Amino acid sequence: MTDARNYDALPMNWVGDYSGKKALLTPNLEAIFDPHDGARYTYRQVDERAKRVATYLVDQLGIIKGDRVALISRNRMECIDLFFACGKIGAILCPLSYRLQKPELRDLMARELPKVIFVEDMFAALADDSVLPAPQPTVICFGDASDVYDAILATEARDVTVPMAMNDPFLYIHTGGTTAVPKVCIVPHRQMMWNAFEALLMSAGSPQARELVLFPLFHVGGWNVFFCLFMRNSLAIPLRQFDAGQILDMIEQKVINRLGVVEAMLQMLKAHPKFEQTDFSGLELITTAAAPCSNETLQPFWERGIPTNQAYGLTEAGPSNFAFLAREPGMEHIKAHSRKVGTPFYCCDYKIVAEDDRNKLQPPGEIGVLCLRSYHNFDGYLHDPERTAKVLDADGWIYTGDLAVCDEEGLVSVVGRADNMFITGGENVSPEEIENALRSHPAVAAAICAGIPDKKWGEIPVSMVVLNPGKKASEADLRAHCKELLAAYKVPRSVAIEETIPLTPVGKLDRKALKAYFTSREAAFG
Amino acid sequence: MTDARNYDALPMNWVGDYSGKKALLTPNLEAIFDPHDGARYTYRQVDERAKRVATYLVDQLGIIKGDRVALISRNRMECIDLFFACGKIGAILCPLSYRLQKPELRDLMARELPKVIFVEDMFAALADDSVLPAPQPTVICFGDASDVYDAILATEARDVTVPMAMNDPFLYIHTGGTTAVPKVCIVPHRQMMWNAFEALLMSAGSPQARELVLFPLFHVGGWNVFFCLFMRNSLAIPLRQFDAGQILDMIEQKVINRLGVVEAMLQMLKAHPKFEQTDFSGLELITTAAAPCSNETLQPFWERGIPTNQAYGLTEAGPSNFAFLAREPGMEHIKAHSRKVGTPFYCCDYKIVAEDDRNKLQPPGEIGVLCLRSYHNFDGYLHDPERTAKVLDADGWIYTGDLAVCDEEGLVSVVGRADNMFITGGENVSPEEIENALRSHPAVAAAICAGIPDKKWGEIPVSMVVLNPGKKASEADLRAHCKELLAAYKVPRSVAIEETIPLTPVGKLDRKALKAYFTSREAAFG
Repeated sequence: MTDARNYDALPMNWVGDYSGKKALLTPNLEAIFDPHDGARYTYRQVDERAKRVATYLVDQLGIIKGDRVALISRNRMECIDLFFACGKIGAILCPLSYRLQKPELRDLMARELPKVIFVEDMFAALADDSVLPAPQPTVICFGDASDVYDAILATEARDVTVPMAMNDPFLYIHTGGTTAVPKVCIVPHRQMMWNAFEALLMSAGSPQARELVLFPLFHVGGWNVFFCLFMRNSLAIPLRQFDAGQILDMIEQKVINRLGVVEAMLQMLKAHPKFEQTDFSGLELITTAAAPCSNETLQPFWERGIPTNQAYGLTEAGPSNFAFLAREPGMEHIKAHSRKVGTPFYCCDYKIVAEDDRNKLQPPGEIGVLCLRSYHNFDGYLHDPERTAKVLDADGWIYTGDLAVCDEEGLVSVVGRADNMFITGGENVSPEEIENALRSHPAVAAAICAGIPDKKWGEIPVSMVVLNPGKKASEADLRAHCKELLAAYKVPRSVAIEETIPLTPVGKLDRKALKAYFTSREAAFG
Repeated sequence: MTDARNYDALPMNWVGDYSGKKALLTPNLEAIFDPHDGARYTYRQVDERAKRVATYLVDQLGIIKGDRVALISRNRMECIDLFFACGKIGAILCPLSYRLQKPELRDLMARELPKVIFVEDMFAALADDSVLPAPQPTVICFGDASDVYDAILATEARDVTVPMAMNDPFLYIHTGGTTAVPKVCIVPHRQMMWNAFEALLMSAGSPQARELVLFPLFHVGGWNVFFCLFMRNSLAIPLRQFDAGQILDMIEQKVINRLGVVEAMLQMLKAHPKFEQTDFSGLELITTAAAPCSNETLQPFWERGIPTNQAYGLTEAGPSNFAFLAREPGMEHIKAHSRKVGTPFYCCDYKIVAEDDRNKLQPPGEIGVLCLRSYHNFDGYLHDPERTAKVLDADGWIYTGDLAVCDEEGLVSVVGRADNMFITGGENVSPEEIENALRSHPAVAAAICAGIPDKKWGEIPVSMVVLNPGKKASEADLRAHCKELLAAYKVPRSVAIEETIPLTPVGKLDRKALKAYFTSREAAFG
């Protein structure tokens, strides 16, 4: 061992058995509150459910280490059961967005090849035969209207845990952005554990948190919020859908003391009739993530004396990598730094390199591309070593594609993208994927897409097409076509039909020109 | 990277720069209180000192990555400076016990080959030419009577940090027990970081601690207490020596809220005249370590309503591996489990194997040898692959040599040793080492040694010798001889001079018979 120590590859019993180990340490502590039915679960109870589901997966479905278990669901207890059950038996959990359309799901499933798919009943229609890969997986439909899951939970548990190495994959997470096809990130146990350590370090000495799991559990960010709360003996409260009135009630009743959101959620809280009279005194911190949040959106919360901070991360390198920690007391300090994502997490290296030269380090004040390196690096894109190599280099650096700048105090701001990706309501979107969808319409000869600023969603997709000679299609037709192929948030809000699309002098799509086109049109029509 | 991920071997910038990263995250938080002069240090100030000392080591002494920096000192700020400075530049800190005698120091230094030795002035005589290895290291004598260290702290700091891998060695820690010669454990960065993570997990959701660093910093336990407090944003208070009156004052004044001790320390607190009138209301927990603590010793603290728990660990596998976490409120639960070290830390596997068959697992209720496996495994004994292989196997298991038993609830008790090692006042002692010392006296023909129970120190060494024909030596002569060769705690309290020494039927030293001899003698003489 002494000279060939690669502990990341060494199987250990505790790796993956996350609920089991907590149940041993703090069995009677409350871990989860489900506001949907008011149920509360101790660590022992969480583990008891996970053990039963794990036994069911092994004994009834024949799932073994390395098998994929897909999941299409809102944030429910069943997701958490499956997370811990997969951990115990070494299965790979593949959560899929219920916002996706069938062509997108078909593509992802063909790559992930799940052996079983758990689908919340309201999304049952999404997992029909047309999207299932071969060999066809078992489909298990669960939900409030079904008692299938009750039977699973009635399984008599036995010890089905297997030793796992930290480098073994735990989650397959699909993510948009930068490419025409959604990418599938391999998230190993190492990544989840290390990000939990980072959260423990960042929150060291803070009292117990009570926090919503509001980010969807088909993003790694949702799992990260949940897992970090679970690991630090804090109360996790999964929410099936965003409901501003319900959240304001939970704030007033001090059910939660912390809140992690994207900008649009804060705007919806502010717009709710209950906002003005809500007592916010129990809310200790609001953290915004996914994209920079404007001061305008934060202002009503600052007025109520609630500290805010910005966090930053990406599936490939985190999911959490930066957060602003106040260095001085008082709201003025927080307001002054509201645009900054602050400092990297304790165990995370970063560098900012020139856009045109990855080997050139940018000094403070100079914008460049942010690169990250840590034990919570992902393990590459599924079946795509070429794309992986573009993002993760031999020294362990991940090229984020995000433009950032560091100030003289060592505080970092994220200021944009080095590529075409944009973020709408916290979702990464690639213009190429939307352009492909438009081009697949028989009337379309050429298409271009970009994200333009939007007060609520951060950015929204807009596009322009040129039609084939003699063909006809209205903007409504084209949007309807996109709706069949793409998740709703990717469908362009406007599709301008023109004679030519903007190109750069060298003949590439000129997305800057497209943005200018829509910005001036908006200015004109208001 | 995807298929050859060994992050433990990948150099990163944050590894080793422990004070620097904290200074970036929480620069203005108080990290250390030095009760000797009342000084308080924020994380930024701790890092500022470390940067200056690191710059001095590099620029003035030419220390580079992998060089050894020895230290003979009580628990002082200078030790902490050197710890973080060595981390930054990749030097290996080699703390040496000031309790050792020159022959022991000479042996250790010859193996560790330090390039520089920092010696607290009160121990200057220990580091004379007679103990120094060749090539002779620089000796830097520091302390309250000298201004040498002031000059070091006046160094203008520059960035001298080097990227380090988690598998790079950080500390060389000497430890007694099981062998005739002290062993030198290689403690990599991986071990220190993971044990800090374990402490974060065990203390998750607990408020800030204020705790003494009372265990000496020449043991890994001392560094572990300090490093875990430092990482979890708690206040570390290094104490130069145990002073019952001072500690009772600090409890009463709520300077500290937690206390980690060995049994003898609790007895000294109880015996102090201030004990009866001390207000203990600010003390939230007493943790005992190094050896099981008797209920008799704990009783006066229980009467004052202070929860207690037992922790367990060893340099090779921890330093911390088990701790009892109360599962129910109230003192009765704590008292009922006071003999148990509880559950393993979150990221630590354990098994209990039969004494005569390492492959046979013991069921609950059956005593066997405790084996441990985790990322906080040590990296072997320095220059001793053979001994390392006996303790650390290819699956990552460390054979502790401690006898343990697990109950039906999964709570573990440590009940003794599978070998001859014993523990006196928290120090591991090997009878073989004492026997060797006795045998080196010209009058001694044969010697045997063992530890026998002692109310204050847990166990104490006693021995028996047979003299060479015609040679004379008194008990006082033999103890004086041992004192020259061995640390005071290893010197046998009694040396019986007899005609024969007890042997087993197969002719091995019969230490059980020796223990019986002294136990019956004690019973007879009181």
